Amino acid sequence: MKIILDGMGGDNAPAEIVKGAVQAVAEISDEIIIVGELGAILEELENNGYQGEQISVKAASELITMEDSPVKAIRTKTDSSLVVAFNMLKDGEGDMLVSAGNTGAIMVGARLILGRIRGIDRPALASIFPNMNGDEPNLLVDAGASSESKAINLLEYALMGSTYVEKVWGRDNPRVGLVNLGTEESKGTSVTKDAYQMILNSHMNFVGNVEGRDLPKGVCDVIVCDGFTGNVILKLTEGLAMSIFKLIKETFRSGLKNMIGGAFAKSGLTKLKEEFDYEEYGGAPVLGVNGPVIKMHGSSNAKAVKSAILRGLPYARENVVDIIRQEMLQIDEYIEEEED
Amino acid sequence: MKIILDGMGGDNAPAEIVKGAVQAVAEISDEIIIVGELGAILEELENNGYQGEQISVKAASELITMEDSPVKAIRTKTDSSLVVAFNMLKDGEGDMLVSAGNTGAIMVGARLILGRIRGIDRPALASIFPNMNGDEPNLLVDAGASSESKAINLLEYALMGSTYVEKVWGRDNPRVGLVNLGTEESKGTSVTKDAYQMILNSHMNFVGNVEGRDLPKGVCDVIVCDGFTGNVILKLTEGLAMSIFKLIKETFRSGLKNMIGGAFAKSGLTKLKEEFDYEEYGGAPVLGVNGPVIKMHGSSNAKAVKSAILRGLPYARENVVDIIRQEMLQIDEYIEEEED
Repeated sequence: MKIILDGMGGDNAPAEIVKGAVQAVAEISDEIIIVGELGAILEELENNGYQGEQISVKAASELITMEDSPVKAIRTKTDSSLVVAFNMLKDGEGDMLVSAGNTGAIMVGARLILGRIRGIDRPALASIFPNMNGDEPNLLVDAGASSESKAINLLEYALMGSTYVEKVWGRDNPRVGLVNLGTEESKGTSVTKDAYQMILNSHMNFVGNVEGRDLPKGVCDVIVCDGFTGNVILKLTEGLAMSIFKLIKETFRSGLKNMIGGAFAKSGLTKLKEEFDYEEYGGAPVLGVNGPVIKMHGSSNAKAVKSAILRGLPYARENVVDIIRQEMLQIDEYIEEEED
Repeated sequence: MKIILDGMGGDNAPAEIVKGAVQAVAEISDEIIIVGELGAILEELENNGYQGEQISVKAASELITMEDSPVKAIRTKTDSSLVVAFNMLKDGEGDMLVSAGNTGAIMVGARLILGRIRGIDRPALASIFPNMNGDEPNLLVDAGASSESKAINLLEYALMGSTYVEKVWGRDNPRVGLVNLGTEESKGTSVTKDAYQMILNSHMNFVGNVEGRDLPKGVCDVIVCDGFTGNVILKLTEGLAMSIFKLIKETFRSGLKNMIGGAFAKSGLTKLKEEFDYEEYGGAPVLGVNGPVIKMHGSSNAKAVKSAILRGLPYARENVVDIIRQEMLQIDEYIEEEED
């Protein structure tokens, strides 16, 4: 496989991106093409003492920043690392694209340059969701690519997420759950009610509606919701975890007794914090477009870059995009007449 | 004031309900009328050694359970404690209703028996949201009374929540925030975009869009969202907090070093857990109906009942329902032509 890596995207580019690539190729035999400012990337390769042949560099002179308007940036910055990377993937010069850049620009580039898979109404951005059971995390779709969803979109998210978790993460028969305000079939909006029936009609391992309180318990491998709800879930989880860790720290700092307790318990708390460590997983897929794209967190360090590449590889290797294309051919069977 | 207390609602009725009433009247000069099965309530009053005159009992022979269908229960169980209580409030036999019963039945009873305030399209159920800053908690509206909302409903939630927090909790100029997937004005669904403009046009202290990650930091006194999102936020918060406390406990249990740390730190963690202690606040209001109604958590104990009564009293005493009625007279001014 040839991995196309956006060398200029994210807060720590290009240094951590290049370092992560160097660490990744030490463990795989695949090639990585880093796209970006030639001089800067070659310098970082040198800084890491890299002299191998698995990594090559493709020059791109422009940069899409976090402040850029996504549509405008993709249309006008044609020599940016991201646009060049997307065109390479489209033209078959590589098998997968990995970027820590502007999320909006990645979604727009995926739609405009790669295009939607035939039959997919709305491509989605997935995200890792921590599993407080201590097991591997789960996949949430959609994390915010669309703010409004129809029932058919939720069905698409379920199908794409289920396929990804099975083929890329290697989990057999992934459990699919639909986020709702109650577990009963009759609960929710007209959209979730229709989506419930469609997913039920499909071949997927549907565990039904899942409530907010059950999400951290890891009750399903694929968490399906509209992008607005997904965004709120992910950011609230992040905010609550951070607030609770802060409170724990403050609790341990106040009073001698707690300070002693804190010193003793520190190693345990570090372990706890790892449950929320997204670096281990590195990235999450853009789903529903004609090519495997992995979006990394903007603040990714070398470890996260390496993880995103290693864990994302089966997205390309297992031809997951083709499998989703095949899935779409039978999607009409799941949709009953109540859908408009 | 005369408080009408549903003696039979909730998991711990009537024992904890009656006990809470006895504790409440020790601190106020107001009257409480407990509605429910006469013998059982008189027995509990005796168990608590109550012989005063602030508490009286009104007989009601039927019971609405958590399993009852709300609409059917309100229509057919006309001698249930909840229906009798609603009719008493409607007929002026009391000034406020407090219940730990079936949430759906409380909302249906409020709408069918008391009726909506003129101009209110959707009554709402509010909920307490913990403030991880250590300050007092905030109010979230809607907690799930409606699963779908129009922009005008979000404006109503904002107006009612803001009035409640100001008049009942005594906070001047409450900060109102609209839950959204980004802070920029342009973010969100067509519904949140329209609601943003309406709330901005109002006299409220609007702090704009608020993201999931900022909610635990207490960035606003009134958290406005549709009932679907509100339900997910509340249940996810509960689920995450419980999962993290469980992990902390397990962390402390594993290994001698952590066990010692845990023993030392126990008092600190108890303090931390109090941030999530809803008992202190007891209840949250039903908003937008013709009478003050406080809904308590189903598992309320005596302490929660007492808190709900004491903290809820200004809902009746300050004529908050009348103030909301007045607010509704000028709501048209906030709505621009883009609203359909």
